[in-house]
Amino acid sequence: MTSTKTAATADAHPAGSPAPAPTPAPTSAGTPKTSPTDQDPFSAEVGRLVVQGEDRPGIVSKISTLLLDHGANIIDLDQYSSNPDGGSFTQRTVFRLPDLPTVKPKLMDDLGGLLDDELHMRWSLTEANKRKRVAILASTSDHCVLDLLWRQRRGEIEMTVPMVISNHNVLAADVRNFGIPFFHIPLNKDTRAEGEARELDLLRGNVDLVVLARYMQIISEDFLEQVGVPVINIHHSFLPAFIGAAPYRKAKERGVKLIGATAHFVTGDLDEGPIIEQDVVRVGHEETAADLALRGANVERTVLSRAVAWWCQDKVVRDGHTTVVF
Amino acid sequence: MTSTKTAATADAHPAGSPAPAPTPAPTSAGTPKTSPTDQDPFSAEVGRLVVQGEDRPGIVSKISTLLLDHGANIIDLDQYSSNPDGGSFTQRTVFRLPDLPTVKPKLMDDLGGLLDDELHMRWSLTEANKRKRVAILASTSDHCVLDLLWRQRRGEIEMTVPMVISNHNVLAADVRNFGIPFFHIPLNKDTRAEGEARELDLLRGNVDLVVLARYMQIISEDFLEQVGVPVINIHHSFLPAFIGAAPYRKAKERGVKLIGATAHFVTGDLDEGPIIEQDVVRVGHEETAADLALRGANVERTVLSRAVAWWCQDKVVRDGHTTVVF
Amino acid sequence: MTSTKTAATADAHPAGSPAPAPTPAPTSAGTPKTSPTDQDPFSAEVGRLVVQGEDRPGIVSKISTLLLDHGANIIDLDQYSSNPDGGSFTQRTVFRLPDLPTVKPKLMDDLGGLLDDELHMRWSLTEANKRKRVAILASTSDHCVLDLLWRQRRGEIEMTVPMVISNHNVLAADVRNFGIPFFHIPLNKDTRAEGEARELDLLRGNVDLVVLARYMQIISEDFLEQVGVPVINIHHSFLPAFIGAAPYRKAKERGVKLIGATAHFVTGDLDEGPIIEQDVVRVGHEETAADLALRGANVERTVLSRAVAWWCQDKVVRDGHTTVVF
Amino acid sequence: MTSTKTAATADAHPAGSPAPAPTPAPTSAGTPKTSPTDQDPFSAEVGRLVVQGEDRPGIVSKISTLLLDHGANIIDLDQYSSNPDGGSFTQRTVFRLPDLPTVKPKLMDDLGGLLDDELHMRWSLTEANKRKRVAILASTSDHCVLDLLWRQRRGEIEMTVPMVISNHNVLAADVRNFGIPFFHIPLNKDTRAEGEARELDLLRGNVDLVVLARYMQIISEDFLEQVGVPVINIHHSFLPAFIGAAPYRKAKERGVKLIGATAHFVTGDLDEGPIIEQDVVRVGHEETAADLALRGANVERTVLSRAVAWWCQDKVVRDGHTTVVF
Repeated sequence: MTSTKTAATADAHPAGSPAPAPTPAPTSAGTPKTSPTDQDPFSAEVGRLVVQGEDRPGIVSKISTLLLDHGANIIDLDQYSSNPDGGSFTQRTVFRLPDLPTVKPKLMDDLGGLLDDELHMRWSLTEANKRKRVAILASTSDHCVLDLLWRQRRGEIEMTVPMVISNHNVLAADVRNFGIPFFHIPLNKDTRAEGEARELDLLRGNVDLVVLARYMQIISEDFLEQVGVPVINIHHSFLPAFIGAAPYRKAKERGVKLIGATAHFVTGDLDEGPIIEQDVVRVGHEETAADLALRGANVERTVLSRAVAWWCQDKVVRDGHTTVVF
Repeated sequence: MTSTKTAATADAHPAGSPAPAPTPAPTSAGTPKTSPTDQDPFSAEVGRLVVQGEDRPGIVSKISTLLLDHGANIIDLDQYSSNPDGGSFTQRTVFRLPDLPTVKPKLMDDLGGLLDDELHMRWSLTEANKRKRVAILASTSDHCVLDLLWRQRRGEIEMTVPMVISNHNVLAADVRNFGIPFFHIPLNKDTRAEGEARELDLLRGNVDLVVLARYMQIISEDFLEQVGVPVINIHHSFLPAFIGAAPYRKAKERGVKLIGATAHFVTGDLDEGPIIEQDVVRVGHEETAADLALRGANVERTVLSRAVAWWCQDKVVRDGHTTVVF
Repeated sequence: MTSTKTAATADAHPAGSPAPAPTPAPTSAGTPKTSPTDQDPFSAEVGRLVVQGEDRPGIVSKISTLLLDHGANIIDLDQYSSNPDGGSFTQRTVFRLPDLPTVKPKLMDDLGGLLDDELHMRWSLTEANKRKRVAILASTSDHCVLDLLWRQRRGEIEMTVPMVISNHNVLAADVRNFGIPFFHIPLNKDTRAEGEARELDLLRGNVDLVVLARYMQIISEDFLEQVGVPVINIHHSFLPAFIGAAPYRKAKERGVKLIGATAHFVTGDLDEGPIIEQDVVRVGHEETAADLALRGANVERTVLSRAVAWWCQDKVVRDGHTTVVF
Repeated sequence: MTSTKTAATADAHPAGSPAPAPTPAPTSAGTPKTSPTDQDPFSAEVGRLVVQGEDRPGIVSKISTLLLDHGANIIDLDQYSSNPDGGSFTQRTVFRLPDLPTVKPKLMDDLGGLLDDELHMRWSLTEANKRKRVAILASTSDHCVLDLLWRQRRGEIEMTVPMVISNHNVLAADVRNFGIPFFHIPLNKDTRAEGEARELDLLRGNVDLVVLARYMQIISEDFLEQVGVPVINIHHSFLPAFIGAAPYRKAKERGVKLIGATAHFVTGDLDEGPIIEQDVVRVGHEETAADLALRGANVERTVLSRAVAWWCQDKVVRDGHTTVVF
């Protein structure tokens, strides 16, 4: 899936495309009716299998043969081995299988036999028309949250958003305008423990992904363990890095020409997790540090939306400290 | 103003920055407080003079001397001559002048004496903290309209939007969510005359610019004459062009790798006016014609927002069939 | 192989990388020693299988099983079906197989049994360390020719260049500086027949690809048939297209903001073949038509080098009027 | 001169264009005959005045009036004030003045009276058809050196290259193929003093700029003082920065998606000088650390060529720790 990872575009839209919103907003009437799946009468028959683990000969053959034996037709397959000798194996397979929802349990059993018992791989099987459930955590900035909600409504991101949680109240009206529940959970460094406990009560079991959309609070290791789903964060980036406070002012003082943003999985070290996506925007000498910050905000929302869109299509596979983005 | 015209960025934000919205939406509380002007206690003192006409020696000197004689300090000046011999002269001058609102009439008189009577140039003098009044015409697509309204609210485009007019009703709720008046004027090729007459009743005298945000009706030459302000349009573009109907399908069939959009001034020939801004987004073989159309929509909104933002900063100067974009 | 198709980069270098030149030029001593293959002690064991034809279930399984039965380990696989119902199937498989050169004949036999006799697919099997033989046809412009030769020498394009043929003599010295044979075959519309006959005498059997590097002569259908290998051409592109003579002047007069180039396979219709790669460069109002032409030349060389580099890695698969670029 | 600073293009060519090489290489016969100046019969009449210093009212007026009094016609003017209150003033003025070479001494006197004695500004007056003399220091990598020499020959950079100096011998043949003198001055940390002394003997008085084209030796503060001309360096950059040795390996391990390069003026702190230009190229998970290094090399040469080309057109003005790039 080449062009979905294209850098420096005006467009954060992923290539593969989603099913239409169950109840399309009237305003989407004029938007292009799009995406293979919703044009495809067989969309309920499209499955995605992602497999990762230790590389060895024969995995592709065994997986594709198993799928064939179940009557599946592979329509898109990406496979990558990080190293011909003892590297890691990652494969994303999109296939069409009549009655997928019905036969899925049997397919899961057989995949478990092959991938768990025989090959000891990590794997997931998803149905293309089952949208990911994505919770958004935010603070006061609207740019990342609204970009995600808008693209979700336009059918550009294959997700539902069961909730937006914020430690402030300023985004409530905008979020609810999209018909999305907004929960206000005040939280600061002193009340982090109980705040995160309340967040976990809302999130646990209800979401497949948590997105930090300029959520300006530290996430505890304990939260990461308990939430049980991946957490994606966005932050600004520069060449070179400007460490510490007021990075935009420092960048301005060096005459920096590019302002960037990085979307990454959150690990114990908040800004050091595996990188999913990055992009930059160009700035000039005539722009103030405040202009740079506003530019940065625009790159942030584009990069975060790309990362979330790809993740929702099962295109982003974490591999230790790095990622495979098909 | 170099980087404001940078291609292929994730960001349509112009470099110079606007004054804050008169009544900032609560949601903007979290957005970067930005822009020279709203940080600048003297923003009411900042003026912009744009001059264009036949090139000859001495224009820069005479204009800058006149401004100096009025106590103005030039803070940003761009001048361009299309040809050293008998080309056209274009200059944009940003200056600071205490009590600008008070002394403006006298300055206008003296500029008229120099630029009208002596040099016979076209010119305009605007106050940086007076936002342009931009009317948006749309049909059913929301992507360009909402991108403009959202960036306006975020303070990324120095405009007010007194009205959105559509020949359909589907965008009413979204537009009014921004607190912007929405007027529904049904119009088709048979009712164009009376429809445009109603549009003109609403527009005449109330706006500085009309933006066609995926407005899917032909604009009559008569409308262009009577509306009395520039009209900016957006449409998709390809390399090479795919003439006629279903351009995205034709592009798909050729294996085209770039989908683009062009923002231009509207002239009698709808899609052939002077080009203000263009950009492209990359596509891949795995994308359907419908995906390409959705990509195209995203480039359209980015390119249109850039063109409008620059126009609102008096950076876009039409010069016959072409444009000077400072 | 995502990022190799990234748009709008300063860099035409493909991601996968070549084996070092048999006799590295001294100047390459300082260049990064790179690419999986030349770092890989098993490079002689790496093969690439490209298969294309009518889609049906089981192809992936049968191919991967056959490779497994020969002891091959798949290290990179891309598969794409243009349509789940009766579309075309395209697969590129990179595998490692000890003693590939020795066992290749047997593997070819078995692949023939499967892909020719049973599945009726088009296919090719290449050895990663066998560089493609690429002939370059040029006229007087040096930019595309020298970019190709330089990248070849730097190890950025996995090719050897057995000859450069030109209908002019001006490039002789530069080409021979790279140690590449240069043949001057005068040719114009009146002498096309005998000129092309002489070209075919040099090319037939000696090359895997012919690249038109700003070769300013029409290629006859007869030549295309007789040369028996793909022919790749480069030409400028615009949004919108400016038909006819002096496109740069026309683009300048419209205030065009992007100048582009398109690399495509040559078919009977010289500039209408399947598109392999495109890119654009940004231009401004202050640039002359001549500046635009010089900008265009730079995009041309970058786009052509990308297209040739990807083709040499078996990543470009022609599929009727379009292409699949993995 | 907006678009010359455009980011992320395939093209390092500056917009304004140079006079033809005194003795054009035969190979350049086929290259586009371009650029205002060499098409312009008056190129010997085009001057460029760059002025920088403390901002105050009236500078633009006084300079433009002085030029007018000498019969000069301003054809391109960029002026920027870093802050309306007590910031720095920077202006680049391109003008046409008949008999410029003849009247230049008188013009210099009068400019000195205004800019030195009255306004106490830094300033330079150059003739557009007098190319800058640029010395290149290199080590063993050819990519930056050859890109500069090639673009110089193609007329894309308005410079002559009186010498290439290297602490190794590997680039001798390639450099001399361009007809450029190559001097080998062995130098390491133990012999830096005498090595730099020999370099200074060659450089002093003979060059207007020194470019470090992947010159892998530290430059002493003493050398910077004695050489008496600006020194431009290029180095790789990442988002975020990967400090210390093996940055490409570290970037690979984090799954970095963008590889960049930064061109900057050299100050006492080698990699921390004012930034002139930056760009990035996209990379993917399938690329090795060695691939990343090769990609980085390609961005380096593009970014360095842009920075040098703009400097040679007097578009790059250093302002303390930052730069103004018109």
